[in-house]
Amino acid sequence: MISAATPAAPPQALAGVFARLAPHLQELDRFLRGQLAAFEPEIRPLATSCVDASGKRIRPALVFLSGWDGTQKVSPELVRAAAVVELVHLATLVHDDIMDGADVRRGRSTAVREIGPTAAVLLGDALFAHALNLAAQFPTTEVCLAVSESARRVCSGEIMQTLRRGSTGITRADYARIIELKTAELFRVSCYLGARISGMQPEYAEATCLFGRHLGIAYQIYDDLADFFGNEGRMGKTLGTDLASGKMTLPLFHLLERLPQAEKAALSEEIAGTQPPRLAHRLAQMREHGVLSSVTRSVEAELKTAAGALRAWGDAPPTPLLLDLVEVLRTQLSSLADKA
Amino acid sequence: MISAATPAAPPQALAGVFARLAPHLQELDRFLRGQLAAFEPEIRPLATSCVDASGKRIRPALVFLSGWDGTQKVSPELVRAAAVVELVHLATLVHDDIMDGADVRRGRSTAVREIGPTAAVLLGDALFAHALNLAAQFPTTEVCLAVSESARRVCSGEIMQTLRRGSTGITRADYARIIELKTAELFRVSCYLGARISGMQPEYAEATCLFGRHLGIAYQIYDDLADFFGNEGRMGKTLGTDLASGKMTLPLFHLLERLPQAEKAALSEEIAGTQPPRLAHRLAQMREHGVLSSVTRSVEAELKTAAGALRAWGDAPPTPLLLDLVEVLRTQLSSLADKA
Repeated sequence: MISAATPAAPPQALAGVFARLAPHLQELDRFLRGQLAAFEPEIRPLATSCVDASGKRIRPALVFLSGWDGTQKVSPELVRAAAVVELVHLATLVHDDIMDGADVRRGRSTAVREIGPTAAVLLGDALFAHALNLAAQFPTTEVCLAVSESARRVCSGEIMQTLRRGSTGITRADYARIIELKTAELFRVSCYLGARISGMQPEYAEATCLFGRHLGIAYQIYDDLADFFGNEGRMGKTLGTDLASGKMTLPLFHLLERLPQAEKAALSEEIAGTQPPRLAHRLAQMREHGVLSSVTRSVEAELKTAAGALRAWGDAPPTPLLLDLVEVLRTQLSSLADKA
Repeated sequence: MISAATPAAPPQALAGVFARLAPHLQELDRFLRGQLAAFEPEIRPLATSCVDASGKRIRPALVFLSGWDGTQKVSPELVRAAAVVELVHLATLVHDDIMDGADVRRGRSTAVREIGPTAAVLLGDALFAHALNLAAQFPTTEVCLAVSESARRVCSGEIMQTLRRGSTGITRADYARIIELKTAELFRVSCYLGARISGMQPEYAEATCLFGRHLGIAYQIYDDLADFFGNEGRMGKTLGTDLASGKMTLPLFHLLERLPQAEKAALSEEIAGTQPPRLAHRLAQMREHGVLSSVTRSVEAELKTAAGALRAWGDAPPTPLLLDLVEVLRTQLSSLADKA
């Protein structure tokens, strides 16, 4: 995971870009804690748990980096925008955990486990409402417009994915659209907000949007790969959950396309949930058919497109730091490859 | 129910105020249908079902009435604000139906029944996100600020109620706070938006807020009464659901306070769900102890406070129409009394 908190021995690039962001992320944490006072006293402990459990802060990092002005100054407007995207993300996590029946996230008991699904639905709603309230505290409606539109798109992507669980009738184009909406959209808008709030010229804001979008796609495909090829201990989560829950991801597309007819039918039944998932067997087949390296090439292609979006903007202060993020993801990707 | 669609033989007051609102509510319906285009094509049929299933439109009515300028002109800004509050309300209904496991609402299959709880959580989120997007289409952030704050308060009220289900440890003050947040808040903000958008003077906007708040409290207590004393056929919903789901409402407070110790303990077990609810028995006890008339007095007191908030503003164009709404609720309340 891209994270300032968890890496055992962070590679240089990661240490570099996150070391630069440390004061910003600390300021964000202080700000988020201050926001808890806005919640009704009865709800505050629940909201506090959600803020405590948040970990990666990659979307806030994109806000800070896209709005980087070349100094170490921490702009209060960027902190507020970073809080908006993080709260939207936290709200989606609370709702995701309900759907997945997850008991633990990042070593902590989930909201759904603590307060039950009903209250957890509402807690996610309250976090989202407060995100939009923060967005409305900017002088114009621009942040609210962008974030509410993005949030609707994120939900739409998640709905599409949910309605297609257990189905192998889904196409690669469907998958591409789902991850573009559910993941890349919030990455994109994080870049947009950072660049716009810092007064970057519109063409550069557009370039960072394209960067964010493709970094988001790459990140989601990486995450889908990690569900099969990750290190369970280091990632802090169970592997094989996508196969078990019938979620078609790129590694499964690749495998299905390569399997002979009878095996393809058997795998389809595992995805549909009519047969138990045979993770070890499917992993062996994935190795045999080179699924990891072919899906890795898809991630690489997205990272290349992301980096390419900034090619004409090498002199802009954020560019080298955004490109560092690409390297961070590339390093994590290669750690998957090392294991296979 | 306060409704333009369902009353069999509408009393004069209801016919009057809703006849005046007919062009506004038609315009709202057209506008909401136009908004469906903003949803991703894959999600549009789901959002359409929600808009089709919406019925009472009491919150939009409050927007239109509080912003009434004395003419029959339908202001596009009021229509947009009415759509915002209605979409927030629809989002909460979608989430409520998940929690209640409701299959049918207003004679239609619920979203949760059609697409399952997971997708229904997300659909509610998407409706809410779009409500905030519409709110952000006003020239300033004022609507977004007010609506996002209200939405958080509505969620907080619902969370408090949920976490206290099955408990008789809840106080009347807790109940008052819960209904103030979960119901009165959206009534209040509907009045606020109508008055502000129509450029009413701030003191009048404040008065309509107070009116909306107390009308909302009255409406919720009426609704809680109707769950025991309503006409099942005419209301289109099952009675006794609050007792069955362990939700402490004012009629139950009154009954508990009047019962002898042993009966009180038995009723507490029914509320806690450790004994099956005995609705007919409890209704008989409520009749014996005059619960309907004592709770009716609470509703009347709230309606009186609501009307009193507008006392100094008899000449303002919205005032007579807002007072008509009070009469509508009073009429519905007395139809409960007739049955007991």
